[in-house]
Amino acid sequence: MLRYLRCCVRTMSNTREQYKDAAKLLDPASTVAKITKRTKLENENAKFVNLEKLEYVSPLGKQGVWEIATRTTKPKGSLVDAVIIVPILKYPNGDKKLVFVRQFRPPCNGVVVEFPAGLVDPNDSIETCALRELKEETGYVGVIRKKTGVVWSDPGLVDANCSMVWVDVDMSLKENKTPVPHWMDNECIEVVDVPLNELEGKIDEWTKQGYLIDGRVQTLVIGMAMANE
Amino acid sequence: MLRYLRCCVRTMSNTREQYKDAAKLLDPASTVAKITKRTKLENENAKFVNLEKLEYVSPLGKQGVWEIATRTTKPKGSLVDAVIIVPILKYPNGDKKLVFVRQFRPPCNGVVVEFPAGLVDPNDSIETCALRELKEETGYVGVIRKKTGVVWSDPGLVDANCSMVWVDVDMSLKENKTPVPHWMDNECIEVVDVPLNELEGKIDEWTKQGYLIDGRVQTLVIGMAMANE
Repeated sequence: MLRYLRCCVRTMSNTREQYKDAAKLLDPASTVAKITKRTKLENENAKFVNLEKLEYVSPLGKQGVWEIATRTTKPKGSLVDAVIIVPILKYPNGDKKLVFVRQFRPPCNGVVVEFPAGLVDPNDSIETCALRELKEETGYVGVIRKKTGVVWSDPGLVDANCSMVWVDVDMSLKENKTPVPHWMDNECIEVVDVPLNELEGKIDEWTKQGYLIDGRVQTLVIGMAMANE
Repeated sequence: MLRYLRCCVRTMSNTREQYKDAAKLLDPASTVAKITKRTKLENENAKFVNLEKLEYVSPLGKQGVWEIATRTTKPKGSLVDAVIIVPILKYPNGDKKLVFVRQFRPPCNGVVVEFPAGLVDPNDSIETCALRELKEETGYVGVIRKKTGVVWSDPGLVDANCSMVWVDVDMSLKENKTPVPHWMDNECIEVVDVPLNELEGKIDEWTKQGYLIDGRVQTLVIGMAMANE
């Protein structure tokens, strides 16, 4: 789970073949991936997540309590737990595509369509983390156009947060024509690119096929539809 | 936290005054709201969230373990934990605004800009829940234009999910000219509306003022900017 525990690069070549494999292994109709057992976990045995009870004063000055889950992995000095990357492929003819990754996600017990993302390492800048994770997960080399401030994943439930980084990927570059991801040993990621104007239809199609959709991906699509009205 | 525990309606009138109060009480520069104590919590003492260890088979056929937080409040038979509402105010002259709520969120220890949202009650349909929560939190009466499938809040960390519901609010209706929210006893919500074309600048402005931004709100803005390029 922690990116800095990564050590085994699965393979460094034959990228098209790799993508094809990942697509087969992650197809909801045939994947072997599934949860086999769920057990309660106490804080003392948990490495990555903890439960906490918060006592707080409300804006009205009243006492309250709230139960939350906290990430335990944020490096000291980091403002955020993670970076989420919104990668745009830009082709010489003006075409634009968005890049997503699909992975089996145990918390959801299914294959989820997400933006590339990763936890921040100690001494990482958001920029370094974003470009490294993009390269590792998708093989693409990009240039950062913009980053957001701190954004919160699920403010009623967890303290998890991230910065979102909008990255341009120049498709006239040689390394972006044959992108080479670096996956760790037990990682299986499918990289999917979609023309901007086909995105809304794709989400519906993927949902029908049994893929699960990340809330950020869904909301980006709603934002695009709203602007296009 | 659970919507069906709601019983005390704070006030049913004088809505403008209420909004002004909420704005003052939630201003990051002066709010009294804050966390006063954090303590570890074990599953047996937790009502709303639990920690679990999952054992799973990966798409490559290998065994793995994953730590997650789970919501314990999903009603039997419900596909989703919650509903997130994207409300568009539509004015007779063609103007459009988006509606957000601001609340103090203990998990983030700050005042967060979010879409209106609520947990699904037993026997709730997504549609019923969306229109009720919109009315309770903002006072607006709307019509559902579209709802998404199941979307996942933070697929690497929690099993929390929701349906997102896009709601049109007809501003020529009398009840939408003086909207009357129904807040529960310790609830303090500020309703903020923003013209669609001013949204990107507003997020930056709110961040500078010390408000925190929900990831779905941020991603919607990125989607709009992307479509407008």
